[in-house]
Amino acid sequence: MSGTKVSRQLFSEERSAEVVAASFEDTPDPRLKRVLTSLVHHLHAFVKEVEVTEEEWQEAITFLTRTGRTCDDVRQEFILLSDVLGVSMLVETINHRTGGTSTESTVLGPFHMVESPPRELGADIALDGKGQPCLVTGRVTGPDGEPVPGALVDVWQANEDGFYDVQQPGVQPENNLRGLFTAADDGRFWFRSVVPRYYPIPDDGPVGELLAATRRHPYRPAHLHFIVAAGGYAPVTTHLFVDDSPYLDSDAVFGVKESLVREFPLVDDPEQAAEAGLANPFRTVHFDVALKRAGGAGRTGGTTP
Amino acid sequence: MSGTKVSRQLFSEERSAEVVAASFEDTPDPRLKRVLTSLVHHLHAFVKEVEVTEEEWQEAITFLTRTGRTCDDVRQEFILLSDVLGVSMLVETINHRTGGTSTESTVLGPFHMVESPPRELGADIALDGKGQPCLVTGRVTGPDGEPVPGALVDVWQANEDGFYDVQQPGVQPENNLRGLFTAADDGRFWFRSVVPRYYPIPDDGPVGELLAATRRHPYRPAHLHFIVAAGGYAPVTTHLFVDDSPYLDSDAVFGVKESLVREFPLVDDPEQAAEAGLANPFRTVHFDVALKRAGGAGRTGGTTP
Repeated sequence: MSGTKVSRQLFSEERSAEVVAASFEDTPDPRLKRVLTSLVHHLHAFVKEVEVTEEEWQEAITFLTRTGRTCDDVRQEFILLSDVLGVSMLVETINHRTGGTSTESTVLGPFHMVESPPRELGADIALDGKGQPCLVTGRVTGPDGEPVPGALVDVWQANEDGFYDVQQPGVQPENNLRGLFTAADDGRFWFRSVVPRYYPIPDDGPVGELLAATRRHPYRPAHLHFIVAAGGYAPVTTHLFVDDSPYLDSDAVFGVKESLVREFPLVDDPEQAAEAGLANPFRTVHFDVALKRAGGAGRTGGTTP
Repeated sequence: MSGTKVSRQLFSEERSAEVVAASFEDTPDPRLKRVLTSLVHHLHAFVKEVEVTEEEWQEAITFLTRTGRTCDDVRQEFILLSDVLGVSMLVETINHRTGGTSTESTVLGPFHMVESPPRELGADIALDGKGQPCLVTGRVTGPDGEPVPGALVDVWQANEDGFYDVQQPGVQPENNLRGLFTAADDGRFWFRSVVPRYYPIPDDGPVGELLAATRRHPYRPAHLHFIVAAGGYAPVTTHLFVDDSPYLDSDAVFGVKESLVREFPLVDDPEQAAEAGLANPFRTVHFDVALKRAGGAGRTGGTTP
């Protein structure tokens, strides 16, 4: 046996992560070096813990390759994979810690593809005439409860059939169920819509096969998307979930947070309906949004590259 | 705040892996369930340890997508990624533990694409007339040192320019530097070749960019591939490394094991050269291969699916 000319540590099962991490020692970007070093340690620990077989490794390679090849201009299967493994939600949560004093965030999702059209407070965003009428009201405040006049409230949602307008061009009216509202002087906002519906994430690709193999359904519970932003405050990307929706405790992408679930009580009163500009009976929901001040980073550690 | 209808645990930074793992609880295949549960725990631990930013997450998604889209019939960029992160080598090692008594394995690599042509003992596999002549000798034995007559010894290597025949169709002669030999009655084998050369793995894709960003070179040290197989024994896939090759301590795919490195001493003696059927001077290498008996699994734990 020779090997006297081998100065650096060679690969072994015991030292595998350490040896591979050492190969990154000359990485100029310290953040990249740290991320890769951590990745290698956790990846090797996983392979060792379950003792991945050669057949399983080959299956994983094939799965990742197919996932990449499923992506195109309008389909991002790797984001979907990240979503169903809870990684998207984890990254979102880490980067937007609230400390319990401001409105919690959740995933943006893939359907905020177009700019929402500016609309007057009180406008009806349901342009397709489907679904159960709903009056949405709320108020935007800062960390000390102060109103945030002029806050921009961007909303979008799926329709009664479970599709966003961009998924059904030519079927739904343009900008159906989207709106960009400006809060009043007291931070209040209000608009008319319909109660959103639950819907499936795209499940005809490799991620759908993974869900099927694990007996997981592809559904997201009914929700209304919000991005609320105002000068001097950190914007929040979040959802409002309907508390009687199916799949609330099994969201395919783990987006539900308890603080974001709301009742949508039914109002059966012709007078109130007339006042709201909606058919009787109708449902209502109220969502107060508390913003953090700008500059407070979500992450408590780490070096931003 | 509502949420009374949410019975299952919801996502939170603290419980993220636990919540996602619980979503796999109905997976019918217990092995798939175990693998996914472990994967989710390690993946979330990684994201938390380095506190992945949203920009980094987006970069990772783009990198994985490009890696998938670089794959085609003759290029497998995800295997390359697994190789440079030491995962291929780890899986290989876990699945072929030797206990120190038999020849160690290493990665198969992507160039065993064609069947090696059967050749007589002593044949010269270097058909392109390039490189330094080399006499390769060895002996195949079992765990108790018994000779293994008739063992099949499959060999292949890169040429003096650092390419395998399949990488240069029309440039190298067909089956250049490949051969399938049958060991003699005493387990011995011998053939003529040239000293192999170091060479780069394909580095014009996303994996090459990763190597460049981390200041890693793409080279593998010079080696000769072997698969040795015989009835009643477990086959071994391995390399013989040249002990004066560059990159021996920095193999891009971590394939080097100390027990597989050999001296290739120079012989400058016209008489011995004539006997070997090689030009003088020439180099020599000796590789004794110890096989395990069939049926001894490499892995010590885990449930095979």
